[in-house]
Amino acid sequence: MAKKYAIGIDIGGTNTKLGVVAADAQVLFRDRFNTPDYKTFDSYVKMLAMRIRGLMEQSEGECVGIGIGAPNGNYYKGTIDNAPNLPFGAGEFPLVANLREEFGLKHIYMTNDANAAALGEKIYGGAKDLEHFITITLGTGLGSGIIIDGKLLYGADGAAGELGHTCAIPNGRLCNCGNRGCLETYASATGIKRTFFELMAEYNGNSLLKDKSWDEIDAFEIEKAAKAGDKIARETYRKTGEILGKSLADFVAFSRPQSIFLFGGPVKSGELLLAPARKALDENLYPIWRGKIKIVPSHLPESDAAIMGSSSLVWAELAEI
Amino acid sequence: MAKKYAIGIDIGGTNTKLGVVAADAQVLFRDRFNTPDYKTFDSYVKMLAMRIRGLMEQSEGECVGIGIGAPNGNYYKGTIDNAPNLPFGAGEFPLVANLREEFGLKHIYMTNDANAAALGEKIYGGAKDLEHFITITLGTGLGSGIIIDGKLLYGADGAAGELGHTCAIPNGRLCNCGNRGCLETYASATGIKRTFFELMAEYNGNSLLKDKSWDEIDAFEIEKAAKAGDKIARETYRKTGEILGKSLADFVAFSRPQSIFLFGGPVKSGELLLAPARKALDENLYPIWRGKIKIVPSHLPESDAAIMGSSSLVWAELAEI
Repeated sequence: MAKKYAIGIDIGGTNTKLGVVAADAQVLFRDRFNTPDYKTFDSYVKMLAMRIRGLMEQSEGECVGIGIGAPNGNYYKGTIDNAPNLPFGAGEFPLVANLREEFGLKHIYMTNDANAAALGEKIYGGAKDLEHFITITLGTGLGSGIIIDGKLLYGADGAAGELGHTCAIPNGRLCNCGNRGCLETYASATGIKRTFFELMAEYNGNSLLKDKSWDEIDAFEIEKAAKAGDKIARETYRKTGEILGKSLADFVAFSRPQSIFLFGGPVKSGELLLAPARKALDENLYPIWRGKIKIVPSHLPESDAAIMGSSSLVWAELAEI
Repeated sequence: MAKKYAIGIDIGGTNTKLGVVAADAQVLFRDRFNTPDYKTFDSYVKMLAMRIRGLMEQSEGECVGIGIGAPNGNYYKGTIDNAPNLPFGAGEFPLVANLREEFGLKHIYMTNDANAAALGEKIYGGAKDLEHFITITLGTGLGSGIIIDGKLLYGADGAAGELGHTCAIPNGRLCNCGNRGCLETYASATGIKRTFFELMAEYNGNSLLKDKSWDEIDAFEIEKAAKAGDKIARETYRKTGEILGKSLADFVAFSRPQSIFLFGGPVKSGELLLAPARKALDENLYPIWRGKIKIVPSHLPESDAAIMGSSSLVWAELAEI
């Protein structure tokens, strides 16, 4: 029997990454190019198709499908809808239809990157045996993928699972979406930096990072300072974990997951973030669930996680057939 | 072909109601008895079985199953788990197993009352054509039933959908569950009364109800006062609707329902509650969903809603087979 593989594509504002992923989770070949070099959707699709063809030519066996994770990627429609970070900007772009035509493959699917991460956890990561879990992706913002009865929750329009835009702090920080107090304004790489500056104001700048500008500081710099004993930096991570954990308690009340997986750069800070998150989760949980819900870092290998997550869209569909 | 019917049972702290429900939503026969008269689970099951048998003897056709809505009713285990309002109190009571043995019927199912209300809306009410919706039941507390892809969300342990215990106001009112700020401490019949007393304090008792005690006032009395022009009573409903609507915006971010159904006594106040809830929902929604999510009163006839909801557990299972 010929070996089967899927192609996973991760479309980001900076890079487009793609790779050939075998059913056993091995990433066989990889490619990437700069997303912003392609100002129109047509030129972008042309380049993407060329790179996909290149991977196919390298690979032995049968390509069973293509999975795509993209900002604002809509599973139902197969379109990228008004993604502010992509160069082709406003509009609904029918990427799945374009690739189906180009490659004559039936199994081409797209969702947003956070959903792809959750599905990757289910197919390749730490959630293989779980039917109910939530993956929270901490990056510039906060993305989420919700698995219920083993399947991604898409909701009525394909965009369910926008937990970064639930309200964590009423009348809190202004969010890019226009609302106030959204969870992602606190629990994300950006949120960590905002909290650090807030605490610098409160504690009068008593930090190792006091000679650094807004532009020089990021969540990783704050993590390093925290690990070097900086109190404001430590308190920044503690507060971030606390706000995140409290919101997670509300998410548990919704879907009662078995575990919550955390994914993304700030999670590498380890217990700095996880310990206060676990504490706040348990303190705020509906009592029948106390001690029963785990917060765990994603088990996906970071470098290939996005490609693996996207490719898992294909494997998940095949498993259902 | 013999006519088919299901038996619906609604177990409440005060009354146990049961009825014979045809597939076309007609409630053919009804019965009820006082729940607190039966202090042990065994005596309760005996009485319940007797009443069920009575209904069966009245009915022509085939009984396809029995559906039960009970406080803390667990769908997966078929047990009533530690329901504080029931006379037999702490413990896990295997009601489904008992009734299966008694009647030799395969299709006997139980869930909590709020889930039964949601399923009733899907099978008999205003959600026949909807695959994604949430039902919020406002009573002594706030119950919720979440329908995703046409099915009830049970989660990992059968107890998903405890939206009454999501946090509406951080460090807010003390809840029966021991946490603070739970939505049901604001958005429920009890919450309305608490808000009324809070506003009496704030506005120095300038209300038509100022000669009434805590024991004499309930959500309905406050509704009547509001409709008579009482400003504190009107503000009570406005504030309740506002807090509810804001929380609903977070629930939409989770599962992206098509509609949200409201059920229970306080919903009969109409626009007093619904107008501010709709306004707050829209103001707090993630922008892509503004104007797209409806809040509607339940379409189930109030007197039979609980029985119909419970019986729909049976029809929902049969539809899947």
